Amino acid sequence: MNIETHTRIKDLMHLLLQSYRDHEEIIKIDTGNQLNRSALIDIIDKLRCIIFPGYFGKKSITSVSVEYYAGDLVEGVLFTLSKQIANALRHRADCGGSDSAVAEKAEELSYVFLSHLPQVREYMAADVSASFDGDPAAYSKDEIISSYPGIFAIMVYRLAHILYELEIPLIPRIMTEYAHNVTGIDIHPGARIGHHFFIDHGTGIVIGETTVIGNYVKLYQGVTLGGLSTRGGQSMKGTKRHPTIEDNVTIYSGASILGGTTVIGAGVVIGSNAFVTKSVPEKTKVSVKNPELQYKTDEHQRWEYQELQQEGFWDYVI
Amino acid sequence: MNIETHTRIKDLMHLLLQSYRDHEEIIKIDTGNQLNRSALIDIIDKLRCIIFPGYFGKKSITSVSVEYYAGDLVEGVLFTLSKQIANALRHRADCGGSDSAVAEKAEELSYVFLSHLPQVREYMAADVSASFDGDPAAYSKDEIISSYPGIFAIMVYRLAHILYELEIPLIPRIMTEYAHNVTGIDIHPGARIGHHFFIDHGTGIVIGETTVIGNYVKLYQGVTLGGLSTRGGQSMKGTKRHPTIEDNVTIYSGASILGGTTVIGAGVVIGSNAFVTKSVPEKTKVSVKNPELQYKTDEHQRWEYQELQQEGFWDYVI
Amino acid sequence: MNIETHTRIKDLMHLLLQSYRDHEEIIKIDTGNQLNRSALIDIIDKLRCIIFPGYFGKKSITSVSVEYYAGDLVEGVLFTLSKQIANALRHRADCGGSDSAVAEKAEELSYVFLSHLPQVREYMAADVSASFDGDPAAYSKDEIISSYPGIFAIMVYRLAHILYELEIPLIPRIMTEYAHNVTGIDIHPGARIGHHFFIDHGTGIVIGETTVIGNYVKLYQGVTLGGLSTRGGQSMKGTKRHPTIEDNVTIYSGASILGGTTVIGAGVVIGSNAFVTKSVPEKTKVSVKNPELQYKTDEHQRWEYQELQQEGFWDYVI
Repeated sequence: MNIETHTRIKDLMHLLLQSYRDHEEIIKIDTGNQLNRSALIDIIDKLRCIIFPGYFGKKSITSVSVEYYAGDLVEGVLFTLSKQIANALRHRADCGGSDSAVAEKAEELSYVFLSHLPQVREYMAADVSASFDGDPAAYSKDEIISSYPGIFAIMVYRLAHILYELEIPLIPRIMTEYAHNVTGIDIHPGARIGHHFFIDHGTGIVIGETTVIGNYVKLYQGVTLGGLSTRGGQSMKGTKRHPTIEDNVTIYSGASILGGTTVIGAGVVIGSNAFVTKSVPEKTKVSVKNPELQYKTDEHQRWEYQELQQEGFWDYVI
Repeated sequence: MNIETHTRIKDLMHLLLQSYRDHEEIIKIDTGNQLNRSALIDIIDKLRCIIFPGYFGKKSITSVSVEYYAGDLVEGVLFTLSKQIANALRHRADCGGSDSAVAEKAEELSYVFLSHLPQVREYMAADVSASFDGDPAAYSKDEIISSYPGIFAIMVYRLAHILYELEIPLIPRIMTEYAHNVTGIDIHPGARIGHHFFIDHGTGIVIGETTVIGNYVKLYQGVTLGGLSTRGGQSMKGTKRHPTIEDNVTIYSGASILGGTTVIGAGVVIGSNAFVTKSVPEKTKVSVKNPELQYKTDEHQRWEYQELQQEGFWDYVI
Repeated sequence: MNIETHTRIKDLMHLLLQSYRDHEEIIKIDTGNQLNRSALIDIIDKLRCIIFPGYFGKKSITSVSVEYYAGDLVEGVLFTLSKQIANALRHRADCGGSDSAVAEKAEELSYVFLSHLPQVREYMAADVSASFDGDPAAYSKDEIISSYPGIFAIMVYRLAHILYELEIPLIPRIMTEYAHNVTGIDIHPGARIGHHFFIDHGTGIVIGETTVIGNYVKLYQGVTLGGLSTRGGQSMKGTKRHPTIEDNVTIYSGASILGGTTVIGAGVVIGSNAFVTKSVPEKTKVSVKNPELQYKTDEHQRWEYQELQQEGFWDYVI
């Protein structure tokens, strides 16, 4: 590095350090070890290998080796996750105690988390089954486990939700936002979601923090289960802001269901692009009434109006 | 590891192994070598370097060195892909034959696949050209090749479609779902798509398995080319469930075209957010008739209704 | 490699080299060093560590070490970015001068870029603050910085916009398209965006090249700020094709605002799924008038029409 370059870097650093002093709210210093996002991604990869052994690792597995294979992964996750949970707990203002007390609590929480893995597997087996039964484009369960973004997003959500219930800060959201990055499916770790959950395509789906979803629910791409108002901002924290979706509900692409008191009853089907802010009684089919289309042909330069036959639509769809 | 930790891991493993026995349907054991998703991603990276030499590798290429550069990559892909295809073939119930017979068949299929690369390059050159001509925001073809998500998604689809036609299980879908992860563009490998295909922005696009798309077609973000009904689930496999889009069709953002008998004729333009479940004759312009808006101003607390001038819209758009 | 394999690879290469001659427009050879996308991604990672020190690196940082930590990163970015800018400049037809002249210009541009980092930090601090204040689902600023896709997309846009203003080819778009890959948020580096910008969820957002956005603007998932017509293709380059959004505007999910002369006045709120192609005066609330829904219950097999109470909607939302 020549002298001029050296001087200019020094000048840049002078400005930057001034900026660090001016905006300390976006710096994280003097707080000990940090959360490490790539360690968390590595944990997700390992958990996926534990949940679906034989699908994602590089080695082939036999009925003899699976115990050692999974045992090795579980031990690795326990070690890394305990460290990350300890770091996360230190972010919380009310996290008293010595470093070793925090580390002990973190290891305890990791055990509790890992002891839920059989339950997660049970839910995931049901989700894979629902995906296969519901999708004529699926050739095998292998294909669904290996490639469906919905399965990945649901798996990460189910894992993150356990950590959310254990009141571990930061980690659950970093995990689900990683799945959001990968899949375009944004499930807040606070949502409560039943078994046999099927997401098809999935890009653009948003499921808010206080959403409750029953069993055998099916969502298509672009569905929002969201809040009605965000005017209140932080003052609304803790209130139920997102809808309740009961068992056996299907919601087609692009529909929005909004509001904390909105309940979609069991067996309801919501058509594409519907915008629903009120409760819907069970076994009802809801669709947008008039997606009227107009046609114009170049030859005659005139407009013809033709109403889309919604009944016809429902004849096909439901 | 202390004794307590050791005991607790043993307890965890006991539960997990029980779960493996309870849900064997989401385990892959005793089946020999597994498909390796990261090997497939590496193959896609190499194929991109072969198709667009000089754009993605780290080395600069000369007209002398390009032969060695590409030859090296082709040999690498042949070796890795043959292995992955062999693993995929073993997933199929009807895949008889010894290990060496499967390996030989896999190598044969890899050759057939690779011999299509010049054709893929011809299509991709046309797709890049269509992207440049259609997009005022594009500064150069270099920019399009280097950065456009549509080009990446189309390239991966074109490669995966060859493997789909060769009836190789699992790999085509893993490839297109990887592109879906990266770009938010979900193209099933079974779709048939002509040349000069242009996808702008692309996030949220879904193109179903039995879709047929002609030449010079242009799609914007959020377009669904989908099925009308999914009620049938697996029983509908193999039927034509998705639409046919003829040459020179443009479909603007958020529009849905649904149904296996729906044919969008040559030269048609479909406006934003249209929901189309019936065929449209050629050279027609289709738009949603009444996206009426209401306005409310704080001062007067009254509502004014104003219909959006669709003709005016079309004057601009088409 | 046996002889047969060798022969077949030679045959494949023969076809491929012919394809390279047939379609030279998608090859980049004999042009010296190439842009390296992974080097640019590494630069983005380092810049994120410089902007938010302590959040993304692996090491913990103290008030003493932050200077060395950041200084090291700045020097690394300066070196790598200068090299990439030099490679990018060589893509431009009008880039005269010797290799050393180009290298000198590239280093100069890198300095100018880096000297804007304190300003980027000031904007990002405001963006983080707006995200926290506006979102009841956010538990802390740490969570927003660590995980929100909107913050990542905005940061990459702000960095790329500086390079765009410095008229550096290719690099700005590769950077924002990388953020688009990661987040599903597509912001063209040419857009001009004020401070306190908040993107919630974000998947599917498109912000076009000539968009102008004021301060304290809030966008939800699926919003398009786009062009009305693309008929003109390349002939429209340089014209203002995208809208202007003034201060304190909120645009809810799925809304489209289109056209270069469309101005959304200060304080306006645009409801979900609105399709706006005309200017809206300040302090107005705009919503789709008739998202009428129809309900059908299995029991009676009849349809009931019920208009969604839009006033009720606005009572909640604004």
